[in-house]
Amino acid sequence: MSRGSERLGRTEEEHYRERARRKKELVDRRIARATIDRGVLVVNTGNGKGKSSSGFGMLARSLGHGFRCGVVQFIKGSFSTGEDLFFRGMDGAFADRLEYHVMGEGFTWETQDRARDVAAATAAWEVAARMLADPDFDFVLLDELNIALNKDYLPLDAVLAALKTRPPRQHVVVTGRGAPDALVEAADTVTEMRLVKHAFRAGIRAQHGIEL
Amino acid sequence: MSRGSERLGRTEEEHYRERARRKKELVDRRIARATIDRGVLVVNTGNGKGKSSSGFGMLARSLGHGFRCGVVQFIKGSFSTGEDLFFRGMDGAFADRLEYHVMGEGFTWETQDRARDVAAATAAWEVAARMLADPDFDFVLLDELNIALNKDYLPLDAVLAALKTRPPRQHVVVTGRGAPDALVEAADTVTEMRLVKHAFRAGIRAQHGIEL
Repeated sequence: MSRGSERLGRTEEEHYRERARRKKELVDRRIARATIDRGVLVVNTGNGKGKSSSGFGMLARSLGHGFRCGVVQFIKGSFSTGEDLFFRGMDGAFADRLEYHVMGEGFTWETQDRARDVAAATAAWEVAARMLADPDFDFVLLDELNIALNKDYLPLDAVLAALKTRPPRQHVVVTGRGAPDALVEAADTVTEMRLVKHAFRAGIRAQHGIEL
Repeated sequence: MSRGSERLGRTEEEHYRERARRKKELVDRRIARATIDRGVLVVNTGNGKGKSSSGFGMLARSLGHGFRCGVVQFIKGSFSTGEDLFFRGMDGAFADRLEYHVMGEGFTWETQDRARDVAAATAAWEVAARMLADPDFDFVLLDELNIALNKDYLPLDAVLAALKTRPPRQHVVVTGRGAPDALVEAADTVTEMRLVKHAFRAGIRAQHGIEL
């Protein structure tokens, strides 16, 4: 590499340092203002990739910190095998502090039966509601819950009430397309995963490690 | 729950089934068209949360499938401790098939020294380039590489060339704000994590398990 300070004139180097100093001041001030510690409600929505994988990344972080964690997957199709293999496998390494439920029966266009979809979502929600009422859970991932809400398989009011009255230090991550407005309103951190492009549209099959 | 088929009239139930059937046909046709299997280049960019955590979620999936994986974190500040603790810890459970490097010295406004930033990015890139040339790596996560490119700490052409000539079955995930246009162009799957809202702006500190 031929880059480095030897290629920067003194003025440019000073300019860089001054800009970095101002940026550091700004960031430090913001950090000083952020003083509240409490459980946050994170919502990942939008049509792009990364909603669930981000949730599982936060699960990894939470396990890394020794948290007790719960996962409920509301929609389980032929997708989502890697995270299963990983988090549920590992020779039960997390058995004592990870409770992991795969509840859905597949995407709704696979089952083609609304009654079954509603029953599956309801059973999944019962597990989720128990976790949301239990202060022993530090982190709860409700994967694809948005789809169940969006399709009106579950009563939104009951879900919002359970989220609102959950233990104050408990983090919750909700993923899935089409997050209801009221859930976005209730959340602390919301990201719209916007699809810029997807390999699938170029004829590339869902790949292990990426989508599966 | 008072929902379910008993509340749906016969016509509504049939309508639901017909819509689900059409949706299934559409999805099945799309899946039938997606027949290519190869390594994909995934880029997570934008100002919202979830870029890195999604990358670590895909890392978990990849490890779940028994892949050999590499991680290079280009920018390492006081952030990002949970994924470290998790993936590098675990009593070396992945020692034989995960190579994990934390290379950056912190955000640039922390170091306030461009020469050091360039040197750190260059050292990180040397490790990354070795992985991108090695077909034994099935999955490579280049966390926050976009920032190093965006700040011109690394030559974009060299990075693009290494990505283009990598082993054909190797998956690569690049994260960070401000992905260069040419990288977006070269990628197979690109998501813009759009910030809708963030707890930090409401005065909530970065939380273990979520940001840390």
